Amino acid sequence: MPRFRLTIEYDGRGYAGWQRQENGPSIQAALEESIFRLSAERVTVTGAGRTDAGVHARGQVAHFDLTRAFPADTIRDALNAHLRPQPIAVVDAELAPSDFHARFSAISRSYDYRMLCRRAPPALEAGRVWHIGRRLDADAMREGARLLIGQHDFTTFRAAECQAKSPVKTLDFFEVREQDSEICCMVRARSFLHHQVRSMVGTLKIVGEGKFKPDHVARVLAARDRSACGPVAPPEGLTLVRVDY
Amino acid sequence: MPRFRLTIEYDGRGYAGWQRQENGPSIQAALEESIFRLSAERVTVTGAGRTDAGVHARGQVAHFDLTRAFPADTIRDALNAHLRPQPIAVVDAELAPSDFHARFSAISRSYDYRMLCRRAPPALEAGRVWHIGRRLDADAMREGARLLIGQHDFTTFRAAECQAKSPVKTLDFFEVREQDSEICCMVRARSFLHHQVRSMVGTLKIVGEGKFKPDHVARVLAARDRSACGPVAPPEGLTLVRVDY
Repeated sequence: MPRFRLTIEYDGRGYAGWQRQENGPSIQAALEESIFRLSAERVTVTGAGRTDAGVHARGQVAHFDLTRAFPADTIRDALNAHLRPQPIAVVDAELAPSDFHARFSAISRSYDYRMLCRRAPPALEAGRVWHIGRRLDADAMREGARLLIGQHDFTTFRAAECQAKSPVKTLDFFEVREQDSEICCMVRARSFLHHQVRSMVGTLKIVGEGKFKPDHVARVLAARDRSACGPVAPPEGLTLVRVDY
Repeated sequence: MPRFRLTIEYDGRGYAGWQRQENGPSIQAALEESIFRLSAERVTVTGAGRTDAGVHARGQVAHFDLTRAFPADTIRDALNAHLRPQPIAVVDAELAPSDFHARFSAISRSYDYRMLCRRAPPALEAGRVWHIGRRLDADAMREGARLLIGQHDFTTFRAAECQAKSPVKTLDFFEVREQDSEICCMVRARSFLHHQVRSMVGTLKIVGEGKFKPDHVARVLAARDRSACGPVAPPEGLTLVRVDY
């Protein structure tokens, strides 16, 4: 039974998230429907990261099995044709080893979180950035972000509904880049807790506003208490950029 | 009579272009209507560049006069409130000298033209890039682009309806950047002929496909003949990035 691996880009606006659910359209369901239209097979598509409603992806990875083999390029092109006009594109399709698992084989996930720090609302980047009406102190945010790198108990930054077995995660990379009126938080880890990126960004935003000193981030982390966390940043600024194996 | 200078960002999709016209909504008309709602004055907004239908701007500049003075920040915020939910944002408003003219005082205009060179259609950048279904040779395009820099008679790259007095223009800058599957042509000149950027990009695309050698661009330019030009690139890849004074 051939297994296929997809690299997928999508604009998460208008979707209830990656995962198939009853309360709205999902990326997973759109892909499964397109695969059915191509192959007449009902399959389950497994994604590397279950992005939330409104969260985007540039390089989501997923796998699925078919009983019948198709050339990988045919899969890519046919799925894109069936997905039209939805803002979901299969950037790449390839035949994968039968033990490849989009979720469990992944060794790291990289996310970008973009903030637009100016009075005027976004016109070109609407729905793709968190609009913050003022400048933030990117240096202070960078200093705070550094305190989150490494292995920690991230309970403070974990959603109540998170299903991970352990709150201990290792953050490999956290960079804060500023360009013009945009600040981008770039993070990478083997895996993240539910809402972890958006929770960390929400706390750093308070640091950027000068309401927390950067080293307050270490105390917030050490508290291992959800109520110590700043507000969770909204989904529209978040993009799953790539998954490595 | 106070004169105001605006810096404007917009997504050109769904607009008939910058200039007020009868066959569809325009950016100019949207701004003039917002100014009327703020001030009860009917004004003409003059832009630095009359972008075509579907062309975007990150840093369009415009001016207009009011009989009554408003604080510049009030103008910015009030216009943004009245423009909502249109994808047009006044990034900056300031009081300008009475002899400032958005169009005639400009010393240079910078445009980006973005091409997405991959089989899969754009999902995140739909409407913002020219989708080209294959890789292009960016080095060859760069070599061709270099031949367009400087002062030339750009008749080959001029639309039939162009109203410029002379076809001679000076191209100050033309860079071709490649990142992942995207190629971006960045150009700068005091002013451009109508469709000049999109015509140059259309010709360079043929070079990128290997159908023209890069030095063929010099012959196309020297022909001073519209029929020597490649197809005009579509509007969605083009963004007016900034205007300098």
